[in-house]
Amino acid sequence: MATALSRFERPQHLPESCCRVALVGFGTVGSAVARLLCARGHEHRLRLTHVCNRRVARKKVNWIAADVVWTDHMQQVLASDADVVVELMGGLEPAHELVRHALQSGKSVVTANKQLIASYGSELLRLAGDNGQYLGFGACVAGGIPVLSALQDGLAGDRLVQVRGILNGTCNYILTRIEAGASFAEALQEAQQAGLAEADPSYDVDGQDAAAKLAILARVGLKIEVATGHVLCRSIRSIAAIDFEYAHELGCTIRQIATARLASGKAYLGVGPALVPYALPFADIRGSHNLVVSTGEFGGETAFGGNGAGGDPTAVAVVSDLLQAARHRATGTASADYGPLVACELRHDLHAPHYLRFVVRDRPGIIASIAAVLARHEMNLHAVLQKPGHAKSTLPFAITLEPCSQGRLDAALEEISRFDFLVEAPVAMPILE
Amino acid sequence: MATALSRFERPQHLPESCCRVALVGFGTVGSAVARLLCARGHEHRLRLTHVCNRRVARKKVNWIAADVVWTDHMQQVLASDADVVVELMGGLEPAHELVRHALQSGKSVVTANKQLIASYGSELLRLAGDNGQYLGFGACVAGGIPVLSALQDGLAGDRLVQVRGILNGTCNYILTRIEAGASFAEALQEAQQAGLAEADPSYDVDGQDAAAKLAILARVGLKIEVATGHVLCRSIRSIAAIDFEYAHELGCTIRQIATARLASGKAYLGVGPALVPYALPFADIRGSHNLVVSTGEFGGETAFGGNGAGGDPTAVAVVSDLLQAARHRATGTASADYGPLVACELRHDLHAPHYLRFVVRDRPGIIASIAAVLARHEMNLHAVLQKPGHAKSTLPFAITLEPCSQGRLDAALEEISRFDFLVEAPVAMPILE
Repeated sequence: MATALSRFERPQHLPESCCRVALVGFGTVGSAVARLLCARGHEHRLRLTHVCNRRVARKKVNWIAADVVWTDHMQQVLASDADVVVELMGGLEPAHELVRHALQSGKSVVTANKQLIASYGSELLRLAGDNGQYLGFGACVAGGIPVLSALQDGLAGDRLVQVRGILNGTCNYILTRIEAGASFAEALQEAQQAGLAEADPSYDVDGQDAAAKLAILARVGLKIEVATGHVLCRSIRSIAAIDFEYAHELGCTIRQIATARLASGKAYLGVGPALVPYALPFADIRGSHNLVVSTGEFGGETAFGGNGAGGDPTAVAVVSDLLQAARHRATGTASADYGPLVACELRHDLHAPHYLRFVVRDRPGIIASIAAVLARHEMNLHAVLQKPGHAKSTLPFAITLEPCSQGRLDAALEEISRFDFLVEAPVAMPILE
Repeated sequence: MATALSRFERPQHLPESCCRVALVGFGTVGSAVARLLCARGHEHRLRLTHVCNRRVARKKVNWIAADVVWTDHMQQVLASDADVVVELMGGLEPAHELVRHALQSGKSVVTANKQLIASYGSELLRLAGDNGQYLGFGACVAGGIPVLSALQDGLAGDRLVQVRGILNGTCNYILTRIEAGASFAEALQEAQQAGLAEADPSYDVDGQDAAAKLAILARVGLKIEVATGHVLCRSIRSIAAIDFEYAHELGCTIRQIATARLASGKAYLGVGPALVPYALPFADIRGSHNLVVSTGEFGGETAFGGNGAGGDPTAVAVVSDLLQAARHRATGTASADYGPLVACELRHDLHAPHYLRFVVRDRPGIIASIAAVLARHEMNLHAVLQKPGHAKSTLPFAITLEPCSQGRLDAALEEISRFDFLVEAPVAMPILE
């Protein structure tokens, strides 16, 4: 970290009750937060005092008050009189270092960094508590939808047993395009051109982005601590238009679904594509919209939907946390802890009905061969679907299975994948109930 | 109020950090709250110490700890060492008196009483603040859905311009039954038999229940204070199965919709039946489910759905507020105020496309007569729908209008209702966009 700069400016004439805000990271979300602070003023409870970014000179805008300090150096922010640091750099380092130092030097922190909170949330909340500071991270999950505070406070009276959601807009966009007939590669390219997917899309399409968000939701809602690496992720890369055709025949569409479930001391956390019956609200979620549904032992299902991404919705979540930080500062209370953890064992298995899709070089006896393996693994076939109009050399067909163990299914598929009539690896997805 | 009783019992062995809870009102919600407190224990943060109800002896249950005090007298609760009073009596008096006295005697209050908060919310929040106490009322609106805390805290960073919802399960049930072919009278009777409607259903079906909830949502979300009596209410009594038939032809269903909108310093609050396009999430809400959608200037639309009624979901909201009360007590902070009010003028008019339905004794020239009046009031016809198969003596048909002022439409309908070919009063509903 750079050494403290000698030049140190403090904006003048701030009312004593006004909370001084330093932004670190001035990209899409950072500038949306600045615009929101300038537009609303927030009844003089918040005031932007610092903007920090690498090579900040190129970022300067004329709509920000002249007395705001622009700096390249995090150290200047840490040494300043800012009351709250907004961390919008992303990534683990140096974000982790900044947040730790900020809390230790008596500043509250608001962050939209899901990786940071999924990895170091408990440590940082302890640090905030020890230093009497507030740590807000509502913007880490589902953008503008205030689902974390709802699970933390609004549903605190219940005992939640499941949190399920559509948490990644990139996957949702890609799947919608495949539904319209595109291949995965074409849909991905469109998403990249629309600025919705990174050059390396793995973090989104293989599930790690949703996994980090799910780990945070599980920590806050189910009171269980699971490392992002322990969330079972399945990629959407193998989904093709044909899967939507068969899904439609089954009254379903396909979405990337993240599920955290806690039952009898066992926790299951998984992210991956799933068949979603039209009757479920998840089926209606399009584009960058997110939906989270929590299930409580007493209150039943509660749903939270809205804009899961974008500068303005995420900025709303950041500024809402800033107002909480200002309130905590005014009353002298520290951040509420997540509450005590529930002890649990990780379960790597999901029991659900499943959809399987094979592409084969057609010849007699294929279904019999596959069915025999499934039967040996004690899985019950529910339906076989085969649409006409495909070449016999690359013939796709689908099988649905009655509720079965995912682990057992994986073993059966491992065996099936050795058949030489398969043209590509089988695709398997749970069907939501 | 009764004088303080001489017998005063205090449950023994409570940890000092434990918050003592007195329930006043032991009906469906009260006993669900007690069950939730007994089942969860809430990590020793909450403990039931008093149950108060008229003729409480008949209410006694054996699953509540023996050291809980059962009493007929509010005064005994007020004089006790309970830290929080849960007001579940309903109605304005003596609930108002109880809550005022509780706050003044240094107790926090949690209530599920929408009438009380819609009428006296600001006064009681001031009183809570003056006495350093917490006032929680999350259970007043939408049962188990934590929408008030979400609007208050989670979306605090935004500037909300509209809050719209399905807030009354009784109306939703009745409308669903009419959709299946029942008359209003039959549907109401079914609702009464199912325990979903009161003997006098006016409070639900004429809109006052939703109006009280809407006034609270508007106060918390839009920061405007509007008396329940100033919410424009239209009854669902005139809706018939034929309206659903025409609605379906227009790609819509019918729901009781509550809308609060703030634009350019003008506020509109209204409750009544409306045509809801299938594509809107409101169309999927059934039975006692509620849905609230807020619209923010920055974050766009955010939706909150779930169980809007029932003992257990409402109890979750009450206990969530109790946990907040315990936290406020531990940190010594009072209830957060609603925040400063936005000044506004009441607008009694809504600009929207409309659906009109007439039942007439058929003869030539009827549509021409009606169209002439509408034209004179500068309203543009969009479509005319007339289903075959009805008797000429009671012929129903529908007209849709392009967006128009509700006030102007009422004037036109006043004129139209004087035509002698009308068999019953015309029905008018806005069509949601």
